[in-house]
Amino acid sequence: MVQPVPAVPRPHRSYLSFLECPRCGERISADRPANVCGCGSPLLCRYDLEAARADLSRDDLAGRPGNLWRYAELLPVRDAGAIVTLGEGWTPLLHLPRLGRRFDLDDLWLKDEGCNPTGTFKARGAAVGVSRALELGVTALRMPTAGNAGGAWAAYAARAGLPLLVVMPQDAPAINRREAVVTGADTYLVDGLISDAGAIVARYGARSTAFDAATLREPYRIEGKKTMALEIAEQFGWEMPDAIIYPAGGGVGIIGIWKALQELEALGWIRGRRPRLVVVQAEGCRPLVEAFAQGAEASEFWQGAATLAAGLRVPKALGDFLVLRAVRETGGTAVAVSDAEIMDAMGLLARQEGAWVCPEGAAAVAAAQRLRASGFFGAHDRVVILNTGTGIKYPDLVTATPPVLPRDGEIPGA
Amino acid sequence: MVQPVPAVPRPHRSYLSFLECPRCGERISADRPANVCGCGSPLLCRYDLEAARADLSRDDLAGRPGNLWRYAELLPVRDAGAIVTLGEGWTPLLHLPRLGRRFDLDDLWLKDEGCNPTGTFKARGAAVGVSRALELGVTALRMPTAGNAGGAWAAYAARAGLPLLVVMPQDAPAINRREAVVTGADTYLVDGLISDAGAIVARYGARSTAFDAATLREPYRIEGKKTMALEIAEQFGWEMPDAIIYPAGGGVGIIGIWKALQELEALGWIRGRRPRLVVVQAEGCRPLVEAFAQGAEASEFWQGAATLAAGLRVPKALGDFLVLRAVRETGGTAVAVSDAEIMDAMGLLARQEGAWVCPEGAAAVAAAQRLRASGFFGAHDRVVILNTGTGIKYPDLVTATPPVLPRDGEIPGA
Repeated sequence: MVQPVPAVPRPHRSYLSFLECPRCGERISADRPANVCGCGSPLLCRYDLEAARADLSRDDLAGRPGNLWRYAELLPVRDAGAIVTLGEGWTPLLHLPRLGRRFDLDDLWLKDEGCNPTGTFKARGAAVGVSRALELGVTALRMPTAGNAGGAWAAYAARAGLPLLVVMPQDAPAINRREAVVTGADTYLVDGLISDAGAIVARYGARSTAFDAATLREPYRIEGKKTMALEIAEQFGWEMPDAIIYPAGGGVGIIGIWKALQELEALGWIRGRRPRLVVVQAEGCRPLVEAFAQGAEASEFWQGAATLAAGLRVPKALGDFLVLRAVRETGGTAVAVSDAEIMDAMGLLARQEGAWVCPEGAAAVAAAQRLRASGFFGAHDRVVILNTGTGIKYPDLVTATPPVLPRDGEIPGA
Repeated sequence: MVQPVPAVPRPHRSYLSFLECPRCGERISADRPANVCGCGSPLLCRYDLEAARADLSRDDLAGRPGNLWRYAELLPVRDAGAIVTLGEGWTPLLHLPRLGRRFDLDDLWLKDEGCNPTGTFKARGAAVGVSRALELGVTALRMPTAGNAGGAWAAYAARAGLPLLVVMPQDAPAINRREAVVTGADTYLVDGLISDAGAIVARYGARSTAFDAATLREPYRIEGKKTMALEIAEQFGWEMPDAIIYPAGGGVGIIGIWKALQELEALGWIRGRRPRLVVVQAEGCRPLVEAFAQGAEASEFWQGAATLAAGLRVPKALGDFLVLRAVRETGGTAVAVSDAEIMDAMGLLARQEGAWVCPEGAAAVAAAQRLRASGFFGAHDRVVILNTGTGIKYPDLVTATPPVLPRDGEIPGA
């Protein structure tokens, strides 16, 4: 059979070496299913980047598949046969000239993750996480979710033929429960937050062999997310932008981007100043923003989390200390925006540039405007807004009551 | 500014020569805005394929942008500066091993157009149509739509800064009116069908300078759609599949695919038997299926069109004679499936392969099963199902009422 372009490049070699704890330094084998370190910290994948640097050139990427598996050497899946793909990644990077003029940012860009399978960036983490679980012999998965991760993992678990149990807040977007149900996941709602869902899934683990795939409780989801930064680098011709604005719930994406920057430097594929990593949260749930402002190393559990951006309704992220480190080490910042600003930014971007983004992405748009106004960004800074998903998953956020004409009617006026 | 990969390759030369009427043979200039031929037929773009064959090789495509503008020479936009893009095209082509086993089709594939901006294949036609309108000096657009085209054209018109008036049936999917409104289109609903919307837009044209961008009433939308076949060819290493199954409303996609096959042959990039082009409609609106069965050259207006697949609710397509010609000349067929079959196929594909497709795409899945059972397809035929959009635009088609657990609840049973 002819191997079509969407598949992984074959043959490939993953340069994965081991798992490492970024808090206590412990190293453990990457070739058995693993969750967190004994000290409670998430584990990170480490690669033999010296060997990769000797063997690989960024020019090798030209002509590779238009999905995240183009970076197979820097991903943890060793056997191409284990790859579970729906064609995720290699998403558009769009210049925003009109919105940029409004914001006085003449080099403003949108990395549009809405073009992924399942309509969000969660597809990246799910593709790599499910693939690696399959490769390591996992036979069932369980996870709590704020919504979109559950939809994505349900799709990839179905594609892999793995059963998945997923628990999400009752007020998660309606589309997410439908995604989970239609793809056959064993789905539950909880009258609470993602933290409550997490406790239920953890208790369930005591009487189940299903592998715990909660955010940062397995080390591979982040490897999928890091490919956003690999793509930004390649799409900009290996010149990193001045800043990347990221809407942070669990924060896996920003940790992944930060990790990718380190790996790209070790490979010698990028050099110079790292982009400032900017974290955006909602005013109604801003544990990372408060921790950043206070100079704290970790965040406090946010009481009464409330925002229309469901993906930002995460009161305490397991990787909060890593997010804060990434933001500080790159000279970034953390800002909170209101739900009203989110809705204004969503409408403005749609009318100016045609892109209807999710509320989390709209929060990043609002932050771009705010940070230019404050002088944090200069007018010529190259700024990338990371839009984590498509607006079409949130129809209820847009009111549309166009006039109804009779069958033989006329357009009024004019 | 560094030119990122998503943009068009520069410099490029469009090999567009003129517009030609496929019914009466009339040739007219391609460099003024044009609608249909004097004889009433749609017009098709013709290219200088001899020159293109001499200048271009399919190997030139390696390393090009991961969107449909990788085929810029075979598209009508002459000036890269006129290109209006949201990153459309270069969508995944996915092998379906599990569903294939169910259907006894061991080489079954899904071309997943749900990964386009706006979540459907309509983005392709809108990108090329809006770009070319902009290039030719059009200052406003008007169109009727069954729904998704309106959403896509609204997005690209906003991206281009062109005003758009759009009229859609009141029972078009709710998401489509939201897409149009959020991106700023002047949006109307009609208490009728797309044909009624078309009449209203046509009458409006008498007192407006807005350019008529209705299906096949301008010659460039089809050029965007044809890139689906260019991609299938390239993704399969220039070996065309045995069959392509396409859900036909207005039928522009299938005409575009047929046109692309001719162009690829003229370029010498593909050879051998053309894939059989299979058209799928819904039992409740099957004018092309009836015309095919009766050996008619054109279809009759279908009275009382009714199906849950809104994109198939087109009672009479302007390009019906071209669709029928494409199906017959390639040894294809035309089949109608019921709404119940559509829903079963949607659920089956989602559970077996993780892809949640739109009802129109699900109709093509149902047709694949039906045509294998009838013996029209052999077990080893390479069959491509063209999924025109994502299922997430149709949340109401999936019922999801998972159990609700209390905040401190437990997963039942086990």
